[in-house]
Amino acid sequence: MPREWLRDYRKDTFVSDLLAGTIVTIMLIPQSLAYALLAGLPAEMGLYASIAPLIAYALLGSSRTLSVGPVAVVSLMTAMAVAKVAEVGTPEYMGAAIALAALSGLMLLLMGFLRFGFLANFLSHPVVSGFITASAFIIALGQVRHLLGVDAHGDNLPTLLTSLAKHLGDTHGITLVTGVLAIAFLAWARHRLKSMLITAGLREQSAGILAKAGPVVLILAAVAASYLFNFQNRGVALVGSVPSGLPSLAMPPMDLTLWSQLALSALLISIIGFVESVSVGKTLAAKRRQRIDPNQELVALGGANVASAFSGGFPVTGGFSRSVVNFDAGAQTPAASILAAIGIALAALFLTPLLFYLPKAILAATIIVAVSSLVDLQLVVRAWRYSFADFSAIAVTIVATLMLGVELGVLAGILVSVLLHLYKTTRPHIAVVGAVAGTEHYRNVERHNVITHPNLVSLRIDESLYFANASYLEDYIYELVAGSEQLEHVILQCTAVNEIDMSALEALESIDHRLREQGLTLNLSEVKGPVMDALQSVDFLQQLSGQVFLSHHQAVKALKRDEIEPYII
Amino acid sequence: MPREWLRDYRKDTFVSDLLAGTIVTIMLIPQSLAYALLAGLPAEMGLYASIAPLIAYALLGSSRTLSVGPVAVVSLMTAMAVAKVAEVGTPEYMGAAIALAALSGLMLLLMGFLRFGFLANFLSHPVVSGFITASAFIIALGQVRHLLGVDAHGDNLPTLLTSLAKHLGDTHGITLVTGVLAIAFLAWARHRLKSMLITAGLREQSAGILAKAGPVVLILAAVAASYLFNFQNRGVALVGSVPSGLPSLAMPPMDLTLWSQLALSALLISIIGFVESVSVGKTLAAKRRQRIDPNQELVALGGANVASAFSGGFPVTGGFSRSVVNFDAGAQTPAASILAAIGIALAALFLTPLLFYLPKAILAATIIVAVSSLVDLQLVVRAWRYSFADFSAIAVTIVATLMLGVELGVLAGILVSVLLHLYKTTRPHIAVVGAVAGTEHYRNVERHNVITHPNLVSLRIDESLYFANASYLEDYIYELVAGSEQLEHVILQCTAVNEIDMSALEALESIDHRLREQGLTLNLSEVKGPVMDALQSVDFLQQLSGQVFLSHHQAVKALKRDEIEPYII
Repeated sequence: MPREWLRDYRKDTFVSDLLAGTIVTIMLIPQSLAYALLAGLPAEMGLYASIAPLIAYALLGSSRTLSVGPVAVVSLMTAMAVAKVAEVGTPEYMGAAIALAALSGLMLLLMGFLRFGFLANFLSHPVVSGFITASAFIIALGQVRHLLGVDAHGDNLPTLLTSLAKHLGDTHGITLVTGVLAIAFLAWARHRLKSMLITAGLREQSAGILAKAGPVVLILAAVAASYLFNFQNRGVALVGSVPSGLPSLAMPPMDLTLWSQLALSALLISIIGFVESVSVGKTLAAKRRQRIDPNQELVALGGANVASAFSGGFPVTGGFSRSVVNFDAGAQTPAASILAAIGIALAALFLTPLLFYLPKAILAATIIVAVSSLVDLQLVVRAWRYSFADFSAIAVTIVATLMLGVELGVLAGILVSVLLHLYKTTRPHIAVVGAVAGTEHYRNVERHNVITHPNLVSLRIDESLYFANASYLEDYIYELVAGSEQLEHVILQCTAVNEIDMSALEALESIDHRLREQGLTLNLSEVKGPVMDALQSVDFLQQLSGQVFLSHHQAVKALKRDEIEPYII
Repeated sequence: MPREWLRDYRKDTFVSDLLAGTIVTIMLIPQSLAYALLAGLPAEMGLYASIAPLIAYALLGSSRTLSVGPVAVVSLMTAMAVAKVAEVGTPEYMGAAIALAALSGLMLLLMGFLRFGFLANFLSHPVVSGFITASAFIIALGQVRHLLGVDAHGDNLPTLLTSLAKHLGDTHGITLVTGVLAIAFLAWARHRLKSMLITAGLREQSAGILAKAGPVVLILAAVAASYLFNFQNRGVALVGSVPSGLPSLAMPPMDLTLWSQLALSALLISIIGFVESVSVGKTLAAKRRQRIDPNQELVALGGANVASAFSGGFPVTGGFSRSVVNFDAGAQTPAASILAAIGIALAALFLTPLLFYLPKAILAATIIVAVSSLVDLQLVVRAWRYSFADFSAIAVTIVATLMLGVELGVLAGILVSVLLHLYKTTRPHIAVVGAVAGTEHYRNVERHNVITHPNLVSLRIDESLYFANASYLEDYIYELVAGSEQLEHVILQCTAVNEIDMSALEALESIDHRLREQGLTLNLSEVKGPVMDALQSVDFLQQLSGQVFLSHHQAVKALKRDEIEPYII
């Protein structure tokens, strides 16, 4: 697909893209290896997942600077999903991870073709942040075993903690020292290195780029140390032999049973990956006044995952940190990502022998430092101050993710936020209104000094009427008319009613029927055009005990008998 | 629990209740047996489920005339749920049905104590009707095997049809003739008998009561025919020996594995049973200006199911036809149900030997005729005319129930109706507004002839802002300001915004940030009190590029530079 940026591609754009591509390559190598480890997969699959998917996204995506590849949360979700159907380390495990990428890719493509981009709206910001924060904890805690050099497992906080506690005695000294030093170095490189380099006389941009190379420097140093001090024979877990060469094209496993077992996980990975990617893409696009198209993003991420599956990779999505690095390094077009893919391909061809001596603890340290930036506890505090519903959504998501694992965690979060929202709409705001003296305006009797009439009651409903609030309206009106002896007419002012669904229509019919039995009429005013069309398609208006008025004032004028003057205040 | 109706209970109330109780007993005996058969359980369990639960509901319920016991849809759902964990006809199967009643009862009690009655609102009328219509088809088709005297099974339309087609050759002649005659008689009794009795000189009420005895007459006749023509040795499937006596109190099986396997089914049965029961209760209460309390109903139905479980019964709920019969027969208080329970207890003590010769085809005929009244295809037609969303909800529910079975059917229905509703709210109505000349009123520029100003744009948002529509608002505003060179201010008129959740708050912050970058200000007008309180709890208002105005007119007066006169039409 020829994209617009290709049309006026110039030499200086290429120079910018080449620089950005190089920096991203340097950053992606350790990340790819680390996230493969996190997903329980061999290191080379991390590299494979960072070649073809980048090219697919570059050709299909609507963001110019988004960088696609393995990311922390999706890798964790992959590990959880695949562990349910295969034993880690077996060819079946690798096959299942590839199938998961294929399935997730096909789902994203389908959602894109169906223009289902709006689905991402149902993941509220609190749920996504809470989920990512909790996942970061689980990811970090899950890597502690590599730091300790022990064999502990678990997919939620309680199981991980118990398993770690049980194996604490087996801690391997050299591994632990290596890991802790690596974390200290990475944290220092992340927070201090740039300003030190600037102080040392480097320009800000160069200092920033050099500082990003911290993880690569660490890997080179660790490989050297591991080789020199013979870590292999001292019981330090190493990455081991990683096959050199480019990924070969292959069909993902086409096993229907396997696919159906992975379906729900693939769906969750697709949605989470999409939401994460789109939010990064939007943020970056906004900075340069560009726009991204959510439905095109679904197609592009779908293509990237299918490409990953056919080239022996695992599920990928747009990553936050790498995209920011790409953007800050000056990437102008998706060509930067294609150049990064070439960089990773070169690494896969020539650098893998080096990785043999790399301690796994180094990759674990890389992961821990990377995910530490995903934790956002400030948002929890802010939500606590701002609203109970948002705080509840975050709290449920975090607790469920920590206690029950990532899949149930995100499902619980979505469910709670949707239910809380629906719960609020089950009790729409309904105001009894009266006329502001001398005008045709009707306002809430509780807040304004207005004229009402003893033989009629005017209600303004501040919400569309639909199945979840239909019975509330019914109860509200029955309660209201129960005590009033003089009442003859009920008028519903429908200014804010954008829709009346069939359940609400039936509730209105019951109300009308009940009021008629009590000698009252039900009237409507200011019904919007589309709502009126729907009401006319059934026999509601013919059956109605009262009338429909164009304006609320006309309704009151037609139905009133005596006026009640407003009290003087 | 002493209830208000007990306080002034009089003799004439007792006479009314006794009559109603007797009629309901006569109606309940064949129904209880039939629904036990439908649930795959021995006949006596149907009787047991119609004794203790009636008393429990009478003591706890808020409806005066609701009649509780086994009902068609819940019995079908019981059969489907229990068949997943045990073989039909085994003691484990019976135990699982009892455990299901216990679990469902405890869930209902819990929901009642938590005041979760509002949850029933999420089952829209189209979904419930569609579900019941489709279930009636499955129930009727499931009984055809008893009419044919063959061994066919299935829990959805395709499997039932295939299984029936396969066994069609084994059809047992006498059974088929018995069943078809029974259906013909029941249909005749239901539609013709009453008017014939009236023509014969009976009073309307007596004719109505006698006509209701149709199924009991059928049973007596069938037992006599079966005995006289020796059906037993001619291969007709009979009910067989039914133990005499009252149910004995016993703990339901307390097997955690079993309970967890049944949990989802129990939840669905609880919700469906509750919704069905409450809608019957509401209809009847409205006729006599009484009210029912949904949360009290949860407690009462919970109590009824727990009572059912402890006395060897299966899941029960308030039934439509029996409650209407109870009401029409003149029941004044729940004492009528207690009297009916005594009637069923007497039947369990003395009438069971008669049932030995009863052909199962007779019970199947009873079920088929009973569920035929549940089919409501008119609603489908009405929904088709009324709105696409409601029609889709019905269609999905019916198709999913027929094709995938009752549990997935009702889940699909709920999901689709909630998603359709949410989808509609993701695109709130937003109007660009201008002043009506000579007034302080702002109206949609597309519908009215209004004054606008080139340096500002006024937007009225007709919906609360929350996570699902936050990004729509963002996109809408970015699109709007993109082309306008002269624009300086954006004013959001928040009259219809009842809530701004945290996702929407962050969207507003992004909008503000983006507008500021483009040299524009974001202003709010007519913000409601509670929304303002929430915005003040965070630093949004301090960061805001523009101001918050009390009225929209004030905002425009303060920010306008030149006026654009409305075009003359």
